Amino acid sequence: MKRVLLHIAYDGTDFAGFQIQPGGIRTVEGVLNDTISDLTGETIEVIGASRTDAGVHARENIAVFDTESRIPAEKFSYALNERLPEDVRITGSMEVAEDFHPRKEACLKTYEYRILCAPFPDPLRRRDSHYTYHLLDAQKMHEAAQYLVGEHDFTSFASVYMQAASPVRTITQISVTETAQDSMAEAREIVIRVEGTGFLYNMVRIIAGTLMEVGRGKIAPSDLPDILAGRERRLAGPTAPAKGLTLVKYRYFSLTDKEGEPYNRRVRR
Amino acid sequence: MKRVLLHIAYDGTDFAGFQIQPGGIRTVEGVLNDTISDLTGETIEVIGASRTDAGVHARENIAVFDTESRIPAEKFSYALNERLPEDVRITGSMEVAEDFHPRKEACLKTYEYRILCAPFPDPLRRRDSHYTYHLLDAQKMHEAAQYLVGEHDFTSFASVYMQAASPVRTITQISVTETAQDSMAEAREIVIRVEGTGFLYNMVRIIAGTLMEVGRGKIAPSDLPDILAGRERRLAGPTAPAKGLTLVKYRYFSLTDKEGEPYNRRVRR
Repeated sequence: MKRVLLHIAYDGTDFAGFQIQPGGIRTVEGVLNDTISDLTGETIEVIGASRTDAGVHARENIAVFDTESRIPAEKFSYALNERLPEDVRITGSMEVAEDFHPRKEACLKTYEYRILCAPFPDPLRRRDSHYTYHLLDAQKMHEAAQYLVGEHDFTSFASVYMQAASPVRTITQISVTETAQDSMAEAREIVIRVEGTGFLYNMVRIIAGTLMEVGRGKIAPSDLPDILAGRERRLAGPTAPAKGLTLVKYRYFSLTDKEGEPYNRRVRR
Repeated sequence: MKRVLLHIAYDGTDFAGFQIQPGGIRTVEGVLNDTISDLTGETIEVIGASRTDAGVHARENIAVFDTESRIPAEKFSYALNERLPEDVRITGSMEVAEDFHPRKEACLKTYEYRILCAPFPDPLRRRDSHYTYHLLDAQKMHEAAQYLVGEHDFTSFASVYMQAASPVRTITQISVTETAQDSMAEAREIVIRVEGTGFLYNMVRIIAGTLMEVGRGKIAPSDLPDILAGRERRLAGPTAPAKGLTLVKYRYFSLTDKEGEPYNRRVRR
């Protein structure tokens, strides 16, 4: 018996989220369970790290599963990629300790929220970017975002359906960057990049929605401390649409690579 | 009667190319004809500029049509976007002279060919990038590409099914740039950007395929002059897959905007 950890990338557009659901609805977890079970001949149930919502994407999410298979842990990525649908890819696999639990180990997660500000939508970005006609002030959004860095009670930035035991979370860094788009006059791509040790339900999407209000001038950067302190969901901006959100990076403090560096996906070429 | 010019962006993945085909096959031209006819109540047949192949994308292709409609030319973009499927968008519209023909006016076109070089494919880029496991040398590709700049007989870089009267075309500039991808260790995006006054059938895809052979070390940059001079299709590299190719820019010399600058899409905000 061994526990295998998978790095998973997916286009969330055609999934009803990560977590398995009854009734044959297509989920990332369901596709992984079916594909790994099919490969090993066992009944596999993966344990996922982030249960991303419907429409949310990942360049790096994590799952583990236990298997008696003789396939070396490092080879699972290749074997699974031959069987998976093309909107899911395993970008690395490795053996971990049998008690390694992807939701209980300390980690750093990074999300990106992409916004296309342009006179017209771009059909090539409709799946992974939120489109807005409004010109947003990225500089002000970045300024506002800095108030969120650190350990805070993020009740104002959590869904009212949030069930976490504590609303306190730590954001280690946030940046808001803007890139001019050569493809369309006046078009800009704004990327909100948030790194933290954990996030409440909908927290990154509410941060994105609030920063977009800042970008439009409806909320001042200096309002952010009061929004945090008020601890009420209605004080923050709306929840930004799922499709702009991508989980881009997952780092466990307990895992290191062969060189002893903090664990990053192993790359073979 | 007026002639209206449209700027068109599309995700080519789910189209059998631009040009209309019999038998209910989904094409960009067919979707445009149906949607404009539906809007104006006339029987509209657009004249397209570039008849891109199946799977090729556009951030800017051009078409014109004639109409008796009272809708102002500039408003067609908005009216059509409300009716078009989300993989096609009109990013600008304007009135042009009644004899303006989008394939006969002198112009500059720019194409981009996107390549993801990484240990594993990225599901979020599977629709608009060509994926390769091989590490390509972008510097050498750029060096090789410079031999193609200028007026040349491009027979070696044209499909054998090419029907053009002359194989001579002018490339005004080519660049090959590489960007490290934060999302995946060792991943790089390579973009080949080609600008010219016109291209033979499959020419940009054959240039891309040839430059990828250069990037892998199978063709030396200094071989390019001989490949051009040999005027035989078999001397160049393979035709790169359609999905990596995007028509990104179209500029007509005869059209200028309100300020008298060379025509660019009009932007209203």
